[in-house]
Amino acid sequence: MFRILLVYLLLFTSTLLSAQSNDSITIRRFYDEALTNGKAYGWLDILCNKIGPRLSGSAQAANAVQFVKQELEKIPADRVFLQDVMVPHWVRGEKEQAYVISKGKKEALTICALGGSISTPDKGMQSKIIEVHDFDELEKLGKENISGKIVFMNHPMNPKFINTFEAYGEAAKYRYSTAGKAAPLGAIGVVVRSMTLSMNDFPHTGAMGYPDSVTKIPSCAISTLGAEKLSSLLKEDPQAEFYFYQTCQTLTDAPSHNVLGEIKGSEFPDEVILIGGHLDSWDLGTGASDDGTGVVQAMEVINLMKALQLKPKRTIRCIAFMNEENGGKGGAKYAELAKINKERNIAAIESDAGGFTPRGFSFKGDSIQALKVMNWKSKFLLYNLNEWKMGYGGADINHLQDQGTLLIGFIPDSQRYFEIHHAATDTYEKVSLRELELGAASIAALVWLISEYGI
Amino acid sequence: MFRILLVYLLLFTSTLLSAQSNDSITIRRFYDEALTNGKAYGWLDILCNKIGPRLSGSAQAANAVQFVKQELEKIPADRVFLQDVMVPHWVRGEKEQAYVISKGKKEALTICALGGSISTPDKGMQSKIIEVHDFDELEKLGKENISGKIVFMNHPMNPKFINTFEAYGEAAKYRYSTAGKAAPLGAIGVVVRSMTLSMNDFPHTGAMGYPDSVTKIPSCAISTLGAEKLSSLLKEDPQAEFYFYQTCQTLTDAPSHNVLGEIKGSEFPDEVILIGGHLDSWDLGTGASDDGTGVVQAMEVINLMKALQLKPKRTIRCIAFMNEENGGKGGAKYAELAKINKERNIAAIESDAGGFTPRGFSFKGDSIQALKVMNWKSKFLLYNLNEWKMGYGGADINHLQDQGTLLIGFIPDSQRYFEIHHAATDTYEKVSLRELELGAASIAALVWLISEYGI
Repeated sequence: MFRILLVYLLLFTSTLLSAQSNDSITIRRFYDEALTNGKAYGWLDILCNKIGPRLSGSAQAANAVQFVKQELEKIPADRVFLQDVMVPHWVRGEKEQAYVISKGKKEALTICALGGSISTPDKGMQSKIIEVHDFDELEKLGKENISGKIVFMNHPMNPKFINTFEAYGEAAKYRYSTAGKAAPLGAIGVVVRSMTLSMNDFPHTGAMGYPDSVTKIPSCAISTLGAEKLSSLLKEDPQAEFYFYQTCQTLTDAPSHNVLGEIKGSEFPDEVILIGGHLDSWDLGTGASDDGTGVVQAMEVINLMKALQLKPKRTIRCIAFMNEENGGKGGAKYAELAKINKERNIAAIESDAGGFTPRGFSFKGDSIQALKVMNWKSKFLLYNLNEWKMGYGGADINHLQDQGTLLIGFIPDSQRYFEIHHAATDTYEKVSLRELELGAASIAALVWLISEYGI
Repeated sequence: MFRILLVYLLLFTSTLLSAQSNDSITIRRFYDEALTNGKAYGWLDILCNKIGPRLSGSAQAANAVQFVKQELEKIPADRVFLQDVMVPHWVRGEKEQAYVISKGKKEALTICALGGSISTPDKGMQSKIIEVHDFDELEKLGKENISGKIVFMNHPMNPKFINTFEAYGEAAKYRYSTAGKAAPLGAIGVVVRSMTLSMNDFPHTGAMGYPDSVTKIPSCAISTLGAEKLSSLLKEDPQAEFYFYQTCQTLTDAPSHNVLGEIKGSEFPDEVILIGGHLDSWDLGTGASDDGTGVVQAMEVINLMKALQLKPKRTIRCIAFMNEENGGKGGAKYAELAKINKERNIAAIESDAGGFTPRGFSFKGDSIQALKVMNWKSKFLLYNLNEWKMGYGGADINHLQDQGTLLIGFIPDSQRYFEIHHAATDTYEKVSLRELELGAASIAALVWLISEYGI
């Protein structure tokens, strides 16, 4: 009896050790292949430099859908398909203009309309401007001080956070909601300090929203240098006036698509591991780091599996979500269809934090499942992925949270992201091939382990 | 007795815990101060954009010496001084030219002279060219195949290394030594593939050397795109000829300086903790990441201590070394003077791997001392410094290794460094303020701990 046990134990141990060693080799092969023959950087070049910025509803967004579909077919993924989704269609219009008028002198300032904002009147809007730093200050000033004026929300992101996403998390509400909070106090327009930790003259756009029943007032972002200039001018001359001009508008919703490509699982085809980024982007840059990088990394996961001739046990599905930036309709549609079709998305990984050097993954969902995956951390230490923690999944995959899916957010280095996020500086040249491919390989390796062992 | 012991134990424990908690707070203050009021990025702007590239012996190198001295005096450091050092003075001369001639057609290629190389003859050099990939291949081809030809050393850096410095470590000998190995075989010139993992048309310069008693032959670097083009052309037409023209020369040695600034230790002034980068740079870019970042981080250590009004127990000395790139005379001079003056440099930290997001430190020297410092790793986990390992110190501080100094190399993220290293693309714009300052704060915090506890 003891002998039999011993033999079983030895067999079990050696199988386990051999599986672990095979895992290490497979993981290494993902990195080797990505760093030598990866396709992500070339795809990103086309997305950014041939197709360009991809606002939901735009012709470029439609071109990007076809491009991703064709490239997935070329790999080839086992199955490539589109999901129809209606998306908001906001357009920027003419180049925005702004200046401050103080003591008879005009000084130009650099602004851009915020996504979802209405236009100014045809000849622009000019009025007194009042500076505030947060919602408390706005509320305290109240109608008597705000009414008839433009509100200047000058809330800087806090540079002391080591992870810049925490600074963004704290500050982004001022971009989204200042118009909605200021309009009931009688404000006629809103200027928001750009959400960036850099000091320069590039304004950063992004979504804003109007609560129902609130008067819509035009809302724009001002560059950080512009915000500093405006603030110091208002200290000298509180009677200074602000002028801005923007012609943006929201058209009727447009038909668009999520793009999907998958490799069918050999043993558990009904268990889906989803990996995605979003294909739409803001229009000032070319949507390279937000989120071209996430899209091409998701495509690369499929490509690496095929290039290495791996046969995953579970179904691996890559998705290019549409409309993350100003509506989230693609993410919602995916989750809706998954529910209708009774699909089982066991895990979903989102890459929407830039294509910088990979640092780890964050998890949201069942903590036992998350722990099982986090225990694989040691397999990634060679590649310096040290951050494995409970936390955030991603805006698009978040719609799956009531379907029992383990949500996983890819964590790249965060330091450079908000230099370029939603600005004209979000371009291909700012992305490093190696950083991008190291991220793709890291995600592919994690997807592979989940497909081998389940969760 | 037991009671007394207990009281002592409690006192000791609480003192220890309180010291640890104070350490955490002090470390946090370094990061806060660097991220909000740091001066390093502004200094780097001046070094790169006002002063420019700083080849040893050049007027810009002399200007940079004065600039660093003045800024250290402005902080003010307790003591600012120069160390005289004679340095090699190599100048590039005119813009280099190169083309390949195949079947009567000329095609231009992008090259640059390697540092230390001689010029070509006045009208350039033209001859048959033979491609090799390593020294073994060169030796095997021997005199009968090499004599009278230009040798094209086409050895790519290996992209599979995760840390790019390992790839550089493997490949850089081909830049430094191909001329010395090829000349005895009768080669008349050398073209070396640029030491970079990027594929583009920027050649990367760097030092080469001639062994004594070997005929000096002109040596240049070709861009990676150029190397690929040349290689494929030679496959089609092995009779193709290569032409290049360069007018570089080595002038007589020039007087120059290391620049030093220090804060006197309050308890152990004779124990010196050195922190440095090198002030000289190659001339194609503006020496931003190699090694403007290291210099301004070392200056920032002094600035942060003063800004936070800290009184270190041991002497903290920042140094801007001269001539790391093509001679190492500054590092050698510092060590020589330290020995003559019987100084005790207990630890020396070098930042010469770029100003990218900090990842950790590597140690060279007494392993017990190194372990003591590595045990502080846990204090840096909040800041994601996960790599603490035995390894390399740095080219300049290495001269101290026989003086019992613990040598410490600052490790930033390595992925982008060899995109720009020694090329025209090594500019200020490629450096991120936050990444630079996070590195400076990490180094300052480590210096502080060493100054508090010794090693």
